Amino acid sequence: MTEFAVAPPRITLLSDFGPKDAYIGVMKGVIATIAPHAIVEDLSHGISPQNVVEGAFLLASSYSYFPPGTIHVAVVDPGVGGDRAILAARNEEFVFLAPDNGLLGGVFAARPPEEIVRVENDRFFLQPVSHTFHGRDILAPVAAHIALGVTLAELGPRHVAPISRPWPAPRPESANTIHGEIIYCDHFGNCVTNVQPPRICGRLHVQRDGAPHLDLEVVRHYSQAEIGRPLALVGSAGYLEISVRDGNAKIRLAVGPGTKICWSDGAGV
Amino acid sequence: MTEFAVAPPRITLLSDFGPKDAYIGVMKGVIATIAPHAIVEDLSHGISPQNVVEGAFLLASSYSYFPPGTIHVAVVDPGVGGDRAILAARNEEFVFLAPDNGLLGGVFAARPPEEIVRVENDRFFLQPVSHTFHGRDILAPVAAHIALGVTLAELGPRHVAPISRPWPAPRPESANTIHGEIIYCDHFGNCVTNVQPPRICGRLHVQRDGAPHLDLEVVRHYSQAEIGRPLALVGSAGYLEISVRDGNAKIRLAVGPGTKICWSDGAGV
Amino acid sequence: MTEFAVAPPRITLLSDFGPKDAYIGVMKGVIATIAPHAIVEDLSHGISPQNVVEGAFLLASSYSYFPPGTIHVAVVDPGVGGDRAILAARNEEFVFLAPDNGLLGGVFAARPPEEIVRVENDRFFLQPVSHTFHGRDILAPVAAHIALGVTLAELGPRHVAPISRPWPAPRPESANTIHGEIIYCDHFGNCVTNVQPPRICGRLHVQRDGAPHLDLEVVRHYSQAEIGRPLALVGSAGYLEISVRDGNAKIRLAVGPGTKICWSDGAGV
Repeated sequence: MTEFAVAPPRITLLSDFGPKDAYIGVMKGVIATIAPHAIVEDLSHGISPQNVVEGAFLLASSYSYFPPGTIHVAVVDPGVGGDRAILAARNEEFVFLAPDNGLLGGVFAARPPEEIVRVENDRFFLQPVSHTFHGRDILAPVAAHIALGVTLAELGPRHVAPISRPWPAPRPESANTIHGEIIYCDHFGNCVTNVQPPRICGRLHVQRDGAPHLDLEVVRHYSQAEIGRPLALVGSAGYLEISVRDGNAKIRLAVGPGTKICWSDGAGV
Repeated sequence: MTEFAVAPPRITLLSDFGPKDAYIGVMKGVIATIAPHAIVEDLSHGISPQNVVEGAFLLASSYSYFPPGTIHVAVVDPGVGGDRAILAARNEEFVFLAPDNGLLGGVFAARPPEEIVRVENDRFFLQPVSHTFHGRDILAPVAAHIALGVTLAELGPRHVAPISRPWPAPRPESANTIHGEIIYCDHFGNCVTNVQPPRICGRLHVQRDGAPHLDLEVVRHYSQAEIGRPLALVGSAGYLEISVRDGNAKIRLAVGPGTKICWSDGAGV
Repeated sequence: MTEFAVAPPRITLLSDFGPKDAYIGVMKGVIATIAPHAIVEDLSHGISPQNVVEGAFLLASSYSYFPPGTIHVAVVDPGVGGDRAILAARNEEFVFLAPDNGLLGGVFAARPPEEIVRVENDRFFLQPVSHTFHGRDILAPVAAHIALGVTLAELGPRHVAPISRPWPAPRPESANTIHGEIIYCDHFGNCVTNVQPPRICGRLHVQRDGAPHLDLEVVRHYSQAEIGRPLALVGSAGYLEISVRDGNAKIRLAVGPGTKICWSDGAGV
């Protein structure tokens, strides 16, 4: 970790803690007490309660925009206090801390980690460890210690086979047709699918209740559709998205996570 | 920009991105990668989706409280990916980055900028530039480069006639009477009008459906009204506001943006 | 305050300002203008409007996790602009700034302050002081000046008898039985009571409309209950909480602040 020493250490936090409580503030306090010069940034705290897939998607589509050396901490943790492990993982550039429940599945799918350990060395924990808030008692202090130079090997034993439960994989039917589904809807109602098309062209077919519902042209940007009209485009995370120009597609089109879609490049139609 | 070098460079972010996604986190990551010592603060991310007037009002009433040299980045951008320009502007104290859609109209109305350029030099962009997230691909990296000392002249050509679409102007009828309307409602339900009265006195007349609805005394602070009672006062941004003591005026009085009002100092009544 | 000089000065903000407006951003701008090297963290801005008890609970259960020397600023201030005082208080480790309305009551109940003053020296205020936003005009600049080394004695005269209105005290009936009530519900719907049991065991009896409503076993962590089942446990702040495994207890059980509860260790039953 010595190559990270020049820039200030940086930690991001992602959770389902929402805007009401002081849980995030408390985690920042714990980090500041141990590593006062670490910079802590919020990735998002608006994950739906206990929705591991949403957390996995946001983390996977965000982490790589941070400086190398950033420590990403994710807490969507319905199993807190039970026997699920807490993992620390790293690839060439980043460190990740999260419960072993699939929250790191999207990151691992894009780039397999170089090292994964179970966080078990309670020398780095806040004592006493509560049964309900490991974000405060384990993840925050461990992240701060990593920021100070503690290595993953010091945290616990190597871990194999982390739980991998990201969103469903897309199913290619041919070079020109890929089946998939909506996996995430953002604040604007844009509905992100699990399909990364090989070319920006063709059409997106949307089903509802097993029947055809919408048939959208894939365009390049919102302005190509008239205000209030639905469209499909490749969003900022590289996936096909369903949107309504200046509107909320989730509400207007009555679609959402699980809605089946199919992309075809139109060549065979 | 050399006079800014002593204090850490500071960037603010204002958007309609809401609390759910990681868009803001990603912008902070991009900034940190380029300018790791810049301090980034959130101005607000609760603008109603695509509501340029709300964004323009909040920016205009907030930016001047930051240290000279602060770079204010605003992203309420329904035209993203289309042919609207992105502007960089500055006055003696601050730099602004925003799409050319009126978002800077309130700032410019209060103090005309000394320099405006179109941000076109893609040497400072994140590549490839997406069609849907210029906050990440253009505004964040350009803000970071400005924090490092890049000048506006390096970003692109001079721009004249930026789109000016802030809230409607008030209409003075006489020295004692000004017509206006509600332009913004805050989290507490306080309803801000576009009228800055010359004196803190008189009455505020509120219409609904073209007919008189309320007739409120202008007081100096909330405590002058009884709990649950409506009142008018000059709010912290210098504009007349309609409030309910310890209550939500927007809901209780059924008023909101567009509601017509009239201030009179009472001398002529 | 000299012992605080080594680490960067740190200020936290807690308010009922919500996510929509730029009030918090403006306070951070004011602080940065005076004390550009101070680090400002959000404790929470999701307090229900004007709900002093919620603010007092969150502050009391959070402040001690920050580094010694942290300056905690709390703004839940229905009496702004009236004649309520603004207090600066400190104990051995922390400084607090808040209106004198009970917001510091939970902190003071846990640990009596060593010094309390009324903040009256307007040399440290932003001028002119508005009647509606003392967070910006008094609390933020005073916090920044404290971060620069100003002492409480410079701010104003000593204050005795601050308003103490935290949540109701629990009522022990015997060594094995304590009566109390729900005082706070978090984002997940977990309902925090005012009872800190001497042992983690026994049962929690919940009333509704004066009649028995629920009888819950006190367990150690969520995983001991089946998904969707209600449970009682000692939460991260040390108080008995009512939860639903992977669900929202406030909604599912129709309980909330004011709901009467009784803990008994079961030995006498």
